[in-house]
Amino acid sequence: MGHDFFQLVSVHKLRESALAFPLVGKESCPLESIPGRVLAEDFYADCDWPMRSRSCMDGFALRAADSFGAGEFSPAYVDIAFECRIDSPPEQDIQPGQCARIVTGGILPSSADSVVMFEQTREIGDGCLEIRRPVAPGENIMLRAEDAAEGDILLGQGTRIGFRESGLLAAFGGHNCRVYRRPRVGIISTGDEIIPVHEKPSPGLVRDVNLYALAAQVRDCGGEPRLYGAVRDEYHLLKEAVQRAIEENDAVLISGGSSVGVRDLTIKVLEDLPGSRILAHGVALSPGKPTILSDISGTAVWGLPGQVSSVQVVMLVLVEPFLRHIGGESDPLWSFEKRLYPAVLGRNTPSAPGREDYVRVSLEAGDGESVAWPVTGKSGLLRTMSNAWGMIRIPAESEGLIKGEKVKVFPFRVV
Amino acid sequence: MGHDFFQLVSVHKLRESALAFPLVGKESCPLESIPGRVLAEDFYADCDWPMRSRSCMDGFALRAADSFGAGEFSPAYVDIAFECRIDSPPEQDIQPGQCARIVTGGILPSSADSVVMFEQTREIGDGCLEIRRPVAPGENIMLRAEDAAEGDILLGQGTRIGFRESGLLAAFGGHNCRVYRRPRVGIISTGDEIIPVHEKPSPGLVRDVNLYALAAQVRDCGGEPRLYGAVRDEYHLLKEAVQRAIEENDAVLISGGSSVGVRDLTIKVLEDLPGSRILAHGVALSPGKPTILSDISGTAVWGLPGQVSSVQVVMLVLVEPFLRHIGGESDPLWSFEKRLYPAVLGRNTPSAPGREDYVRVSLEAGDGESVAWPVTGKSGLLRTMSNAWGMIRIPAESEGLIKGEKVKVFPFRVV
Repeated sequence: MGHDFFQLVSVHKLRESALAFPLVGKESCPLESIPGRVLAEDFYADCDWPMRSRSCMDGFALRAADSFGAGEFSPAYVDIAFECRIDSPPEQDIQPGQCARIVTGGILPSSADSVVMFEQTREIGDGCLEIRRPVAPGENIMLRAEDAAEGDILLGQGTRIGFRESGLLAAFGGHNCRVYRRPRVGIISTGDEIIPVHEKPSPGLVRDVNLYALAAQVRDCGGEPRLYGAVRDEYHLLKEAVQRAIEENDAVLISGGSSVGVRDLTIKVLEDLPGSRILAHGVALSPGKPTILSDISGTAVWGLPGQVSSVQVVMLVLVEPFLRHIGGESDPLWSFEKRLYPAVLGRNTPSAPGREDYVRVSLEAGDGESVAWPVTGKSGLLRTMSNAWGMIRIPAESEGLIKGEKVKVFPFRVV
Repeated sequence: MGHDFFQLVSVHKLRESALAFPLVGKESCPLESIPGRVLAEDFYADCDWPMRSRSCMDGFALRAADSFGAGEFSPAYVDIAFECRIDSPPEQDIQPGQCARIVTGGILPSSADSVVMFEQTREIGDGCLEIRRPVAPGENIMLRAEDAAEGDILLGQGTRIGFRESGLLAAFGGHNCRVYRRPRVGIISTGDEIIPVHEKPSPGLVRDVNLYALAAQVRDCGGEPRLYGAVRDEYHLLKEAVQRAIEENDAVLISGGSSVGVRDLTIKVLEDLPGSRILAHGVALSPGKPTILSDISGTAVWGLPGQVSSVQVVMLVLVEPFLRHIGGESDPLWSFEKRLYPAVLGRNTPSAPGREDYVRVSLEAGDGESVAWPVTGKSGLLRTMSNAWGMIRIPAESEGLIKGEKVKVFPFRVV
């Protein structure tokens, strides 16, 4: 391979370098705005929850023993002594043979140990209740601190907040938590052939696809994209643009210009910037080989392929975990390792050993297993990504996968 | 079931009602802001793409016939006639026995029908190129219009825009598309026991969990939540709050207050509002039975359960498809029908027939199939949702699922 002067690093090794960059700073965030943010400190329960034993049902609180033996044809009978409130503990207690009316969420009288559901009772007049089913101690109630005891860690530093976590924060007073700032990510396109999106191309010119696709991918993993537009293939112009982007952002993505051959400007510029360390120039990844990662005085600057599907795959495989990491997520490979759909491969899929191969697949839902069919098409085409449902990974050491093999599919669409 | 005066509608029927509400209005959206939005019109290719045949590789454009028979020990030789530009069609053409230097994306000379990769060639001096592998016609090139022909529909009305779609819009000039407005969704909590999140509860009081969890869920499906806070259980207060929320929003969610028994204020208020039609009062769904859907002069107002996990499940099963629908998505059940992970059930899971049952499960990744384990816990607890990975559906007609059965898991975390 005479012209192959890349020193390829493995995906694993490049990820190690990428996940060693420092995290962004912290800020406070009101609860309304916290979905999608990442906690910058552990979050603790500030009280027992529930604070007292409460009912899970609309019904009647009682001593379970008073219902033992009750049945459809041999009901038990208790007296309705009072009504429990939902917003304060009852002032009275029940005596043996008594119950108290209670709604979902209501606080139990001290001596009640269970709740019989409304539907399994009948009020027969004179404050007397007929019970047609026995309840067990603890039935239909939440015990004090069953959810959490004061001081429990509820959410760890590095947790990405979703709807369930928003609810937990609300329940325990997290109205203003410390979170990581959204990573600011500068996006630059390079190439003399790139024109702005609102212009009409003539043959040879292309609109700036990557600027917008990358911005969307940056948002997908919690970052804040800043678009710097396209820079012509001139050393000084690119160097100036990269320097400006470094000053204004936590990380910089440059798409195009990282292929060997005539367009090696990016690596020259990155090598020449003050404080530069090139961590990778070429990665054992397909598509995505001509990827560069440099550390410019502590800021990560990525040189990404120009081809549409290559750059989108590199974003998913390498840049997304990196952005999740600097954004404080404790499990930056989450989406990559845990959001995978099992399927079986539809046909033999060869792969050159020595590189990790990401093959775009369509997914055919079967009655039992889904079938992943490799999508053919050149990586310069827009539709190899758009027509695919997701992608599968063929490990570097593998020469390919066999029809019928179990695979895990990384989905492209998730929301 | 003496006290069961619900007329339960099926999940299917309630969804039909919900998906009949009118869509929100349209607006224009610049490309930078379009990720997550829904297209309000079809999007067409405004030119052939590629506009001319282009190279997918760095290498040399040639007539494939000139490489036929080439091999490691019997190379073919051609003359390098000129260099193709990336930003305009070449002014010259190649003759038989000639090739033209080309980079990825470069436009082919008229007579070239293929590209030989850089790595499979060697320049031996005097403008002569050695080729060590034959190429086939069409190899390593993208043909004119291979991606799209002018006038092709690229994205249909109702498409939710992700990173791939953002790239497609950029490629074909979609710098300012018509999209649906984000549905504005008013969220009201009811209950005398509800206190604001920044206050410390005393026993019997609870912080307003649902306000924030629901807001996050509304965002997750593209809506814009507006928080109206908690309203006390008083007819006039609730009626006023609902009326105000209807005026200011495309849909309204009321959580709490929809259980039978003492807290039937919501249904009374909804029945009394001008132009009211109650479409459902009680749904054959567990958890989530006490769900109300009303049409108040064309605006959907949902009465949702108060319990944390019940309301979150109802949001996923019913309200999310509704919000996707009014927000213009052409496939509002997408996440519910297509974002499902196959697994096998870890143990027998009974279910009362006559209602759709949603069982929270944890997921144990296996070597082969993942195993879904039902998470036990009362629906009033916060952690039955937080501890679960997702949920499975047990159909209304089923009496339960058997250990080892194949199930599809709806995941709670997706980004």
